[in-house]
Amino acid sequence: MKCVSIEEGSLVLYFYNSDKKWMIRVEKEKKLHTHLGIIDVGATVGLEYGSHIYTNKDKKIFLLPPNIYDYVMKSQRTTQIVYPKDYGYIAARTGLKNGSLVLEIGTGSAALSTFLASIVMPGGHVHTFDVNEDFMSIARKNLEKSGMNDYVTQYKFDPEIISKLHGIDLVIIDLGDPWNYLDIVHPVMKSGGSVVCICPTMNQLEMLSTHFFHCGFIDSEYVETFIRKIEAREGKTRPSMRMIGHTTYLGFARKVLKKMES
Amino acid sequence: MKCVSIEEGSLVLYFYNSDKKWMIRVEKEKKLHTHLGIIDVGATVGLEYGSHIYTNKDKKIFLLPPNIYDYVMKSQRTTQIVYPKDYGYIAARTGLKNGSLVLEIGTGSAALSTFLASIVMPGGHVHTFDVNEDFMSIARKNLEKSGMNDYVTQYKFDPEIISKLHGIDLVIIDLGDPWNYLDIVHPVMKSGGSVVCICPTMNQLEMLSTHFFHCGFIDSEYVETFIRKIEAREGKTRPSMRMIGHTTYLGFARKVLKKMES
Amino acid sequence: MKCVSIEEGSLVLYFYNSDKKWMIRVEKEKKLHTHLGIIDVGATVGLEYGSHIYTNKDKKIFLLPPNIYDYVMKSQRTTQIVYPKDYGYIAARTGLKNGSLVLEIGTGSAALSTFLASIVMPGGHVHTFDVNEDFMSIARKNLEKSGMNDYVTQYKFDPEIISKLHGIDLVIIDLGDPWNYLDIVHPVMKSGGSVVCICPTMNQLEMLSTHFFHCGFIDSEYVETFIRKIEAREGKTRPSMRMIGHTTYLGFARKVLKKMES
Amino acid sequence: MKCVSIEEGSLVLYFYNSDKKWMIRVEKEKKLHTHLGIIDVGATVGLEYGSHIYTNKDKKIFLLPPNIYDYVMKSQRTTQIVYPKDYGYIAARTGLKNGSLVLEIGTGSAALSTFLASIVMPGGHVHTFDVNEDFMSIARKNLEKSGMNDYVTQYKFDPEIISKLHGIDLVIIDLGDPWNYLDIVHPVMKSGGSVVCICPTMNQLEMLSTHFFHCGFIDSEYVETFIRKIEAREGKTRPSMRMIGHTTYLGFARKVLKKMES
Repeated sequence: MKCVSIEEGSLVLYFYNSDKKWMIRVEKEKKLHTHLGIIDVGATVGLEYGSHIYTNKDKKIFLLPPNIYDYVMKSQRTTQIVYPKDYGYIAARTGLKNGSLVLEIGTGSAALSTFLASIVMPGGHVHTFDVNEDFMSIARKNLEKSGMNDYVTQYKFDPEIISKLHGIDLVIIDLGDPWNYLDIVHPVMKSGGSVVCICPTMNQLEMLSTHFFHCGFIDSEYVETFIRKIEAREGKTRPSMRMIGHTTYLGFARKVLKKMES
Repeated sequence: MKCVSIEEGSLVLYFYNSDKKWMIRVEKEKKLHTHLGIIDVGATVGLEYGSHIYTNKDKKIFLLPPNIYDYVMKSQRTTQIVYPKDYGYIAARTGLKNGSLVLEIGTGSAALSTFLASIVMPGGHVHTFDVNEDFMSIARKNLEKSGMNDYVTQYKFDPEIISKLHGIDLVIIDLGDPWNYLDIVHPVMKSGGSVVCICPTMNQLEMLSTHFFHCGFIDSEYVETFIRKIEAREGKTRPSMRMIGHTTYLGFARKVLKKMES
Repeated sequence: MKCVSIEEGSLVLYFYNSDKKWMIRVEKEKKLHTHLGIIDVGATVGLEYGSHIYTNKDKKIFLLPPNIYDYVMKSQRTTQIVYPKDYGYIAARTGLKNGSLVLEIGTGSAALSTFLASIVMPGGHVHTFDVNEDFMSIARKNLEKSGMNDYVTQYKFDPEIISKLHGIDLVIIDLGDPWNYLDIVHPVMKSGGSVVCICPTMNQLEMLSTHFFHCGFIDSEYVETFIRKIEAREGKTRPSMRMIGHTTYLGFARKVLKKMES
Repeated sequence: MKCVSIEEGSLVLYFYNSDKKWMIRVEKEKKLHTHLGIIDVGATVGLEYGSHIYTNKDKKIFLLPPNIYDYVMKSQRTTQIVYPKDYGYIAARTGLKNGSLVLEIGTGSAALSTFLASIVMPGGHVHTFDVNEDFMSIARKNLEKSGMNDYVTQYKFDPEIISKLHGIDLVIIDLGDPWNYLDIVHPVMKSGGSVVCICPTMNQLEMLSTHFFHCGFIDSEYVETFIRKIEAREGKTRPSMRMIGHTTYLGFARKVLKKMES
């Protein structure tokens, strides 16, 4: 198997441990100053991914190729991002797959858009809308960094533009009042397609639940997901004391045709 | 937007609610007898997805196109399957994406293979190995049903065959002793590629933790995920009393080059 | 140490395992027919607690003296009871102790009253109110069975009677609209005393949160508790698949004096 | 109802909010310097509990009588304490009650001893053993502060002393190898009495599970408890992001007589 080497311009994850890692674009002469000592970034040109170097304080640093998870976790943040435990379940629950067409309302920092695009590309596409131009600019940079920008189109929010989409498989609504967007997205979705609403509060979930059916959505499901780290060590295995207690609730439903009898 | 209609031979999800739903291949004259009355499957030929019919007991049944989630949840089981909360996180945590090459040891009923293939297709591929020929036969049928069989190759477990693979992005090990397979999979993986071990017990997780580093894997993480349903209803929103307390632990790590200094 | 023997009239817990156990009052000639065979209850007179007998199907049954936990879990139910994970935290969080005076609104089946009385007796007392006379009658029987009836006074709900109590350390409100009772209980509580509201839904919790401060309560805290069983077995230790996802939320606060400046 | 006033020498909880509160013994002239300004402790002599004062920065501070929860949470720590979610469940699950006799091995900072004593007093008693004399000294001060010292006897660990106890209702073992103490405590326990082992790791729980039955204990149960705070606010109710992921596992069992047939 041929090895893959680091080139000038490559994005590399300089990894010490899960808390100490840096995603850096390699340039000749570049040096990174850290609490673990200086990482000679320029000197890693030509090295193979998976190999390691040492800082001037003799700390071992592994050279890893970043993956989508790294891009998401290291993306520049605007507001709260959607976390892997949540966006993984979104993909799993909605049957998101290669080729899917996605409509996202609320781009934020494009963390979720990045993940969604990595799955639906190259046949599928993500159409994402936001109102905040500052966020949109940060999102654009994050998408370029991960290389997903070809598979994501960013728009300033406009119902007119949304109404011209069609055949959407998955709609993500990450705004404070998702129920107000159900009538906008319903016409452009495939029958059986899924809508997912990101709802940090129980009140949002409750409002959403009163709108799904009347707006032409069935199979509604409301969940929260948790993740707990385990400290696995010989003879002393125990869960971690630190845990995130809440990120967001998720509301799911599937589109059906609307002309319903009473 | 043109509508999509049900044809003879289509797989249709006949949906009453999340507990009462049937995935059936449509044939003329076929009738399905349920506790909710008879569903006239043959009469749905020509109807549009998203529309609904009634049973002879006047229960409304929606006609949905199955997605990957439905295929997984309705697949014929052999042993315990990996659940959406877990396989979603696997995809999210490892940066699985379109085009990835996957090696799975322990096919089981191919629930996980189906999901993985739906993401990596058409450019990527899943190579999956098992020892039990009865399971392999059930897995084959499940893969055909979901249409993912073109993107999954099934093999009877043989280290020789595995050794000829290369450039693997993601390895999944779903066997009782995953640590015994780390040396087999390491040489065929890309640097920075991920291995994920499905470990129902904490003893497996602990054994795994003692092997990762010496076998050339870093960035190890051990987690368990939970999902809780919320009953969202106007004025009476509360979590569901029913919850699954445990499915499995997951152990993650990434490959690095092995010639390490002491 | 002298041993304690079973007498006629004793309540005995006939224990096979945590799912198969029976709390029976011993009478000569009494026999209990179970799926594990016949337990000759009469023949246990004179046996020592902690010893065991066999059913006629040769199943080993241990003879245990019931404790408060057994009385609560085996009490005749009216509505949903408050579970040990919740009432334990109530005691811990409020500093309930021997000698405390308790006011409970919503007796239900007296499961909680039984536990509270067992802690505050003999110096303390539980005053409990309900509106449903059928429930009150069942509660009376449960209290007699556990021997806690001397330390609990049952009343038909009447604000007049409540207003004559004083020096209350702990108030428990287990009704659908606990916020409507805060003004009733405030005057009869000690400064610094705790009120605990049993709120199955988040809507109740939210309503409660808007009333506490204006009604003269501070240090409010809203929690939910979980308990997960672990199947500890050599080499195969893992959490149990079965788990209760939700029982109730709990709302806590402490009384302060009400004449507050704006 | 007569009001209760603060006297010189009283312990008072000066409460701003759940994160900013101080338990102070009142002395004339004493002033407490805080980030919220100066609290004039001496000036609170004669004030009623439940009333409030202001700091020199105009922050409102309520004057509360400390309860057992406050003593435990404000006790001087030696090692990790057992938390209210856990000790509350211990009381609930074992039927601890007024008059019970408790044997504790591993006093630590006496947080748990304080709680246990507050329930079993005045008729019951806590016998607690430790090997570390420094811890024992800190424990003594904590017990004196809460006023529970009359109901707790502290000993330097000595199996000889333990063997002279009898009629113990509840045994708590808070040491790294609890299984090694089962034979020591069994003879001094009442039949049906409970033993509870504090086990931070799964390995300890597993070792314990292999010893209970052979040492004469049945009805074993292994659990972990969780508590999650809810931020209840009108229109924006959601769980708190912060949560403790793990404190300890708990192992429970009840004593039976040991002369068992094979």
